[in-house]
Amino acid sequence: MTLTNRAFRLRTRPVGEPTPHDLELVEEPVQDLADGEILVRTLYLSLDPTNRLWMSDMRQYSPPVELGDVMRGIGIGEVVDSRHETIRPGTLVNGYTQWQEYCVAGPESGFAPLPDPLDAPLTAYLGILGHTGLTAYVGTEMASPAAGDTVVVSAASGAVGSVAGQIAKDRGARVVGVAGGEAKCRHVVEDLGFDACVDRTARDWRRQLDAATPDGVDVNFENVGGEVMDHVFMRLNLNARIILCGMISQYDAAGGTWKGQVNVGQILMQRATMRGFIITDHVDQFAAGFAYLSDMYARGRLRHDETIVDGFDEALSAMHLLFTGDKVGKLLVRVADHA
Amino acid sequence: MTLTNRAFRLRTRPVGEPTPHDLELVEEPVQDLADGEILVRTLYLSLDPTNRLWMSDMRQYSPPVELGDVMRGIGIGEVVDSRHETIRPGTLVNGYTQWQEYCVAGPESGFAPLPDPLDAPLTAYLGILGHTGLTAYVGTEMASPAAGDTVVVSAASGAVGSVAGQIAKDRGARVVGVAGGEAKCRHVVEDLGFDACVDRTARDWRRQLDAATPDGVDVNFENVGGEVMDHVFMRLNLNARIILCGMISQYDAAGGTWKGQVNVGQILMQRATMRGFIITDHVDQFAAGFAYLSDMYARGRLRHDETIVDGFDEALSAMHLLFTGDKVGKLLVRVADHA
Repeated sequence: MTLTNRAFRLRTRPVGEPTPHDLELVEEPVQDLADGEILVRTLYLSLDPTNRLWMSDMRQYSPPVELGDVMRGIGIGEVVDSRHETIRPGTLVNGYTQWQEYCVAGPESGFAPLPDPLDAPLTAYLGILGHTGLTAYVGTEMASPAAGDTVVVSAASGAVGSVAGQIAKDRGARVVGVAGGEAKCRHVVEDLGFDACVDRTARDWRRQLDAATPDGVDVNFENVGGEVMDHVFMRLNLNARIILCGMISQYDAAGGTWKGQVNVGQILMQRATMRGFIITDHVDQFAAGFAYLSDMYARGRLRHDETIVDGFDEALSAMHLLFTGDKVGKLLVRVADHA
Repeated sequence: MTLTNRAFRLRTRPVGEPTPHDLELVEEPVQDLADGEILVRTLYLSLDPTNRLWMSDMRQYSPPVELGDVMRGIGIGEVVDSRHETIRPGTLVNGYTQWQEYCVAGPESGFAPLPDPLDAPLTAYLGILGHTGLTAYVGTEMASPAAGDTVVVSAASGAVGSVAGQIAKDRGARVVGVAGGEAKCRHVVEDLGFDACVDRTARDWRRQLDAATPDGVDVNFENVGGEVMDHVFMRLNLNARIILCGMISQYDAAGGTWKGQVNVGQILMQRATMRGFIITDHVDQFAAGFAYLSDMYARGRLRHDETIVDGFDEALSAMHLLFTGDKVGKLLVRVADHA
């Protein structure tokens, strides 16, 4: 029996928000497995800001998706057929499923089996115990927030920011989030346990940020960039650490409309350090990070929030939730039910 | 006998280029010495970009000069009277003379006697063997340029940039300068020994920079900021190090005209680190730095260039040479002859 795969292929590079013209949903036969390959049925697809980056040909940390190729993406799936030596059908795996319902993957494809039995809900392995949790872990390790530090985390209700803030809080720092809207700010403080949250959509967000950081800012875990980061720069303390994890405010901008950072000079004035990092460079920390996050979760100190959009067809339209911010926690697409 | 001092006092904060209205040249009697104090006659006054910063009330690394105070500045002087236990008249000293002909300084003022006899021309102790040389030393130590690295140094013919580039070259790196005008670029390559120099006043400076950095940029020793830094960011290699030593392109700008850095996102994409530093935080490295620079000078690997403007009255008007770049090497004002 020949299975039919459905996949999003990149046809043109989006300008602004991606459209069905840019990413075409196609039906294609699934190829037969060769020796060593597995066939993975996608259950959940992770939507991340970096997906938008990969669609562009902006200078970035890995090659952009080639025009014509299936859109790159990370997911959780179930092995439904296998010619691999050790991975058996029924195994749950995490890896680059890409934006498709079925993925044929060779032995070098990097799919990793999930723990059996699971210690947390399945979808947590794309969130707090997956690549976004590990991203938060690696970034906070770089900044080493401790008691006495004030940490500002942007996109605080997002998949990475929410975990970064919870880690910093667990380490004893004062943690101030930045999020869009009163409801998300309430969530960040009441559910995630941040000390304060600044509503960047409010007219007085600068005043809110000043009031929430009376002793200045020692660590900026930055996911967004733009004018909020510029204002945080003006509140940096001596020897502040800026961990540049993302700049989502820039990824969706058309070529000429990038806004420059005005207050970079404060990195000089405050003898600060700004460090950019990409999670895939830190594979050597994954085991330690997974253990750390699992322990926090077991202690009830790490909350797993997610927004699940139903149906593979919705993957493209769901992307806009990343940019409008109309979601909380990890954004996922449910592609198929786990049998 | 009551000596008369002449001093520049800050009356108003300059907008754009400082004028005699902002800094007033006044005559005042020199105070009598108290116990422990010395009277220093200024011989040479150092002009540095940071002077302009200190005139403003921009958020900066030390308090700005208060309105009404004598302008802050570093100089070399001769002790002409002393009630200090060990410092005798005739001693040559280096320290905060301020912008004045005579300075009364207490035991905590930080004046340091120069070596006796001198190992280099007197003015070198405000340049390659003084605070600007030490600034270049501390910054290059942070970046650890080595063989195989491409280092871009902005303001390459300036007091700090010229030394930073010579140190990086001595350590085996490929060193590319950025300077204003063909004559300075020739000087940077032919006299200072850089591998190449980009003329930022040329229409094709971007093409020049690309051509001079065929293997990308590993270290950016940055003194200027602005669009050249933005272009350098687009050429950063993986794990590049940006040493932010100055941003002279911003100091002279009126409040609303700061240009933002557009390509900060490349710090993320290239997993780069940008570190700001201020030399006064690194006093613990001064002895090692002085020995390092003295050794380079003795080996003939460190060239001392200077531009000397004659006459204390010219201190203010000479400042503009820092911003137009119409000078080479260390900019000094000769206030009095060494008897």
